[in-house]
Amino acid sequence: MATADPSRAGAIAIQLDDWRKRADAALAAALDSVAGTEPGLLAAMRHAVLLGGKRMRPLLVYAAGHACGAREETLDGPAAAVELVHAYSLVHDDLPAMDDDALRRGQPTVHVAFDEATAILAGDALQPLAFAVLAATPVNDTRRVALLAELADAAGARGMCGGQALDVAATGTGSGRARHAGGHDPSRPDAGGNADDPSRRLGFLERLHAMKTGALLRAAIRLGAITADAAAPTRRALDDFAEALGLAFQIRDDLLDVEADSATLGKTAGKDAAQDKITFPALIGVDASRERLRQLAARMTDALAALPGDTAPLAELGRRTIERSY
Amino acid sequence: MATADPSRAGAIAIQLDDWRKRADAALAAALDSVAGTEPGLLAAMRHAVLLGGKRMRPLLVYAAGHACGAREETLDGPAAAVELVHAYSLVHDDLPAMDDDALRRGQPTVHVAFDEATAILAGDALQPLAFAVLAATPVNDTRRVALLAELADAAGARGMCGGQALDVAATGTGSGRARHAGGHDPSRPDAGGNADDPSRRLGFLERLHAMKTGALLRAAIRLGAITADAAAPTRRALDDFAEALGLAFQIRDDLLDVEADSATLGKTAGKDAAQDKITFPALIGVDASRERLRQLAARMTDALAALPGDTAPLAELGRRTIERSY
Repeated sequence: MATADPSRAGAIAIQLDDWRKRADAALAAALDSVAGTEPGLLAAMRHAVLLGGKRMRPLLVYAAGHACGAREETLDGPAAAVELVHAYSLVHDDLPAMDDDALRRGQPTVHVAFDEATAILAGDALQPLAFAVLAATPVNDTRRVALLAELADAAGARGMCGGQALDVAATGTGSGRARHAGGHDPSRPDAGGNADDPSRRLGFLERLHAMKTGALLRAAIRLGAITADAAAPTRRALDDFAEALGLAFQIRDDLLDVEADSATLGKTAGKDAAQDKITFPALIGVDASRERLRQLAARMTDALAALPGDTAPLAELGRRTIERSY
Repeated sequence: MATADPSRAGAIAIQLDDWRKRADAALAAALDSVAGTEPGLLAAMRHAVLLGGKRMRPLLVYAAGHACGAREETLDGPAAAVELVHAYSLVHDDLPAMDDDALRRGQPTVHVAFDEATAILAGDALQPLAFAVLAATPVNDTRRVALLAELADAAGARGMCGGQALDVAATGTGSGRARHAGGHDPSRPDAGGNADDPSRRLGFLERLHAMKTGALLRAAIRLGAITADAAAPTRRALDDFAEALGLAFQIRDDLLDVEADSATLGKTAGKDAAQDKITFPALIGVDASRERLRQLAARMTDALAALPGDTAPLAELGRRTIERSY
């Protein structure tokens, strides 16, 4: 998926960097729109949103919308909205009752920099801000409703929250209960990650991540397509791309936790093993995980080949997902 | 605001009870729409939503919509949506890092019945479900967007979450920091509840509750008006009614905490004083609080007199707010 022409690759990098700046500006504007209430809450919301981050999801909104011919200014709201949901989820995931992480993007997590109550409320307030931003997107009302419905579905029990709940149920994170190495808790047979059959465990792991991280990545791409009013075959090809990208994103994340140190990662490394999480390297091994990444890269390339528009920025985001080192 | 004719009063009570059943059915349908993911998460969401509750906010949606001539079936979604947001806020407010309450509506709170991680996630998943339900409301897309924007604003930093943050900042609930009787923390001068000047403290308390509980009660009434596509003067009169009702609701809540026992209240009584919360009885006394309730009842009656439609159910909800004993 690499772009052979160096000047073309440079142009794509500049394009992505420009979109990242647009997303940051849209996020700042969204936070400004709720200024003037409780200062601690606003500071915590800003901390959660504005201190770094790769802006992968906003970039996917712009790149998908661009591939479908959307005007850039119609993509700012959807780009900000999906990042607001992502940011809130990180704040809540880091809470002591969840992953209990003190470090995120090289910064103290919100409950460490502020306090737990403020972190809960900041996450709670970032979520409706995402929907408020979408409701103000400068497209027609039919598309606005489609954008809102898409994000609501991706963020909820059938998407991100459901995936996080599967993770909590499978690993015991959050309940304070220690599990043995297989993560098996006979009191929760429904969790599905508990069977000793490796293929069943792999299926569970893929389903977990398709919801926990995949749903929001796919929503980012779909928001771009909805904003552009893309045709059904285009949307299907983008869904194929999104599915492969989501899975690749998580496999790469699991590999990074094994390979990287905390300084590079900007968050605590080696936590997955310490927390007895089910991961792709733990389940199928490091080499097989890397082979899966190569297969997913090929799937992304195939999916993009079916699209009529300029897919080079999407391809570059796929490449970064596979090759990222932090 | 009482209805003099007993048969008319009975008819209104039957109407409200019918709407409560409609709301319960709409809530059950909303929860069914996300069935099939992680069983613990779904059970926690159901626990939060389906075990009782007066359904005050859904009833306000129906009563306001009815006053403006909306068809009942268009009000089911907005009624369920506002209650889903209310239910999620209770789950998070009850968390150990917030109010740390073990009892709600006479039942164990979600983090007690399940665990903290599941309670956080159940709240997080109930919120987007509210927006998903609104997006599917059978009205035109322009009204749908208006409904979504209204609820997003009311639930966020300028509304419910902002009010909760003001409460946390003023009383120290959630931070684990003890405050003296005045609730004064010199490190947070902006909280506004700290000045010794009683009138300034009263202004702060009213602002806090206008956001914390008032915003969602007002949103309920507005959702009904938006669904009915009510004219601007009608909406202004309903906003007047909503403002008085929201404040009355909180004053009554504060009085109940002083007067009632836990069995009647269905939650732990006397907590406000124990937690050093600023309340109307603590600030202006019990008698003056009751006098404020009488004034607010008159304001509600005046506001409803300006409306053309059948306002009897709204008047009855105002009366119940003033006179409720649980």
